Amino acid sequence: MNAAVDERIDADFETSLDDLFELLAQPSISATDEGVAECTALVENACREYGFDDVKTVETPGQPSVIAHARAEDPDAVPTVLLYGHYDVQPVEADLWETPPFEPTIREGPDGTDRIYARGAGDNKGQWFSHLCAVRALREAGSLPVNVTLLVEGEEESSSPNLEWVVETHAHELAADLTYAADGPIDPSGRPHVLMGARGMLYVQIDAEGPNRDLHSGNFGGPVPNPAWELVRLLGSMKDENGRIAIDGFYDDVRGITDRDREVLADIPFDAAAMRSDLGIDGFADGPGESPLEKLLYYPTLNVPGFGSGYTGEGSKTIIPSTASVKIDMRLVADQDPDDILTRFRDHVERHASGTVDLDVISHGSMTPQRTSLDSPVIAPILDAVGETWDNDPILKPSLGGSLPTYVFENHLGTPCVVVPYANADEDNHSPNENLAVERFRTGIHTTAHVLTNLERSL
Amino acid sequence: MNAAVDERIDADFETSLDDLFELLAQPSISATDEGVAECTALVENACREYGFDDVKTVETPGQPSVIAHARAEDPDAVPTVLLYGHYDVQPVEADLWETPPFEPTIREGPDGTDRIYARGAGDNKGQWFSHLCAVRALREAGSLPVNVTLLVEGEEESSSPNLEWVVETHAHELAADLTYAADGPIDPSGRPHVLMGARGMLYVQIDAEGPNRDLHSGNFGGPVPNPAWELVRLLGSMKDENGRIAIDGFYDDVRGITDRDREVLADIPFDAAAMRSDLGIDGFADGPGESPLEKLLYYPTLNVPGFGSGYTGEGSKTIIPSTASVKIDMRLVADQDPDDILTRFRDHVERHASGTVDLDVISHGSMTPQRTSLDSPVIAPILDAVGETWDNDPILKPSLGGSLPTYVFENHLGTPCVVVPYANADEDNHSPNENLAVERFRTGIHTTAHVLTNLERSL
Repeated sequence: MNAAVDERIDADFETSLDDLFELLAQPSISATDEGVAECTALVENACREYGFDDVKTVETPGQPSVIAHARAEDPDAVPTVLLYGHYDVQPVEADLWETPPFEPTIREGPDGTDRIYARGAGDNKGQWFSHLCAVRALREAGSLPVNVTLLVEGEEESSSPNLEWVVETHAHELAADLTYAADGPIDPSGRPHVLMGARGMLYVQIDAEGPNRDLHSGNFGGPVPNPAWELVRLLGSMKDENGRIAIDGFYDDVRGITDRDREVLADIPFDAAAMRSDLGIDGFADGPGESPLEKLLYYPTLNVPGFGSGYTGEGSKTIIPSTASVKIDMRLVADQDPDDILTRFRDHVERHASGTVDLDVISHGSMTPQRTSLDSPVIAPILDAVGETWDNDPILKPSLGGSLPTYVFENHLGTPCVVVPYANADEDNHSPNENLAVERFRTGIHTTAHVLTNLERSL
Repeated sequence: MNAAVDERIDADFETSLDDLFELLAQPSISATDEGVAECTALVENACREYGFDDVKTVETPGQPSVIAHARAEDPDAVPTVLLYGHYDVQPVEADLWETPPFEPTIREGPDGTDRIYARGAGDNKGQWFSHLCAVRALREAGSLPVNVTLLVEGEEESSSPNLEWVVETHAHELAADLTYAADGPIDPSGRPHVLMGARGMLYVQIDAEGPNRDLHSGNFGGPVPNPAWELVRLLGSMKDENGRIAIDGFYDDVRGITDRDREVLADIPFDAAAMRSDLGIDGFADGPGESPLEKLLYYPTLNVPGFGSGYTGEGSKTIIPSTASVKIDMRLVADQDPDDILTRFRDHVERHASGTVDLDVISHGSMTPQRTSLDSPVIAPILDAVGETWDNDPILKPSLGGSLPTYVFENHLGTPCVVVPYANADEDNHSPNENLAVERFRTGIHTTAHVLTNLERSL
């Protein structure tokens, strides 16, 4: 790594901060369209100012994406890295903010360090804007070591409904050797993460309708079917006595755990006792997975985020409720296919239904899981770059427990995908007083520069 | 039956109506104490006016009961009948009434017949007041054929918490050969019911507490136990695949069905297709009981009147909920003991709990089931009396599906208990515009007179 690049980054840092503030001051709420058009213009403009050669906005049926290219001096001689981010932000409850969400302000955070308070500071403007700053510094201090393509979408906070379409229809333009994203918070310990994938998701709801009105449980109880009980019975049929999901073929495509996976798992810091104490739980759930981390990173789940039926107030009310509804989210792992799982889920419900209650299975959306191989050659240079830049060793994680749309890049571009979060652990994204520590923004810029430099030599 | 008694009843009917109106004009809401003291004074006074020899109010830790005696000319030579009713009424939502709930008004009902509109008209003032009118007519037209004891309690609408104490501590005074009550509506077909018992009840709630806050189902799903799932698993363990309750020993004390029971069942009119169509259900529940009526009258249930956990709004929210709660009502049948069932229920929960979620089993109260033998000598005279009085044949029912405190009389006085509803099927008790058809009140008085007369000869 050329020390001149780090110097350049620090020398330009006040300008970078000012330019980030301009972006943060611009509302860009995908859910309501507020400021989206103005923000895409700002993004385009920032790309041009920071030295990208080729910038355009791609309209979609929803919010537009911005695609920008910054080519190395000899583009054919070096790899191409696709950097993914999103300019859209979550809605705000302005009265819960100490300073207005779209008036970025630097003030001291809970740990005494300076923070940039603004909606989108950490999620995700401050993270992908690091990439622009790094690209400019690399060029100003020498030359861009790899070709960089930037894809900044505008619907991530609305589940990226058009990302797949954008990537598919622009696959040629977006072709790359690696997709890299800075998103999410670092580990609460202060150590950075390097994430090789994410679990997918399938979200369904079963609505059950029994009698056409609530009935007196004495006058009707016995012969009349209860829709809450129908759901209990159905759910009960979905796991065996060991907590293993009993939907036929549910685990068929699960990639499984190799020795290399186990090595990586063993290196992830995890304090089970601290987690139990923090969450106030008496133990961990059963089901497949030998350890809590295995369960979290390598196995799918079938979770009940909500169940509602009948009377749930104080005391007693003796009814057979007319309706019941359960929401179910299934976190999926590589190589499960949400469409296949949805079919299996529907088949299971059909096969196990009593026939006495009307059932309606509704899908609320899905995301395909993705996991980059732990043998991928991109891992070492990225770990090295992150390790060089931070004061702490990076933690390699085979997967995020949550979901990210990284499968889109693997499936349509064939790239490995790596996610390195730059934001502080207490960034409060999606919450009031979202913030990004000033030093995390600075470290982010250095990290991108180091990663791109390392990738030139390694890809 | 002495035709003079029927004539007397009709001759006195306008006075009886006026006196009933005075009772109905007096609020007596046990839940709020409103008018309870004034109403007990009215009840005492009415008993004296209608010829009872011995009247008193029994204070309880809750609302008082009134006990009154009307003795036959030769009290030792004739049986004693204990008549049970309640003077307390449900609260009112006055703005939903066409005429004020405590200003009794006669006007045409939906079927064109005259109705008495007032809170308590059918439930239960108009029904037990029939007994007073019958006692007076019997005396005025000849003599009282049996000794009558009247027990009118003031907490039936609050689950009769002190009835057992009153009966137990006044067992000597209340000693009788039969307990007889007029309560509830007649069959919608217009035929009267003669009920030989009621199912009991046990109402419990299980509160489950998992993590101390709602968690992101991606970041925590897998290792962290879900309290909604814990309840699903527990409930699932409580019934087998045929819908039979799987709590150890749950059916041990169930009295079972004799050939005589089956004969009685066969005589009860029941239109399964009409019930399915009315309720909009696709079929009947499984579990023990060969027919819907058997399930309703001879078997206990385990019903879920309410289940609440997590997010139940529109669309999706991906959380592991922190808490979940389920309400369960169990309808019990003779000779199940609610205390024993509660112990078995708690044992079952303890044995099947995963140990990863905090569970709290709360009892919301219970009622012991009761069933008078179908071989009891009281049945024939009552059926005959009801048959003589009504235009329709009575339907003998071994049990009500719902719950009534008749077990108190069987357990502490050793009496058989029979309930004969006098109110019209659309009495709207507990609802706005509660009413009693004027002719149902008149028939009620005749019915009590005929029943008491028949019992003299048969007990």
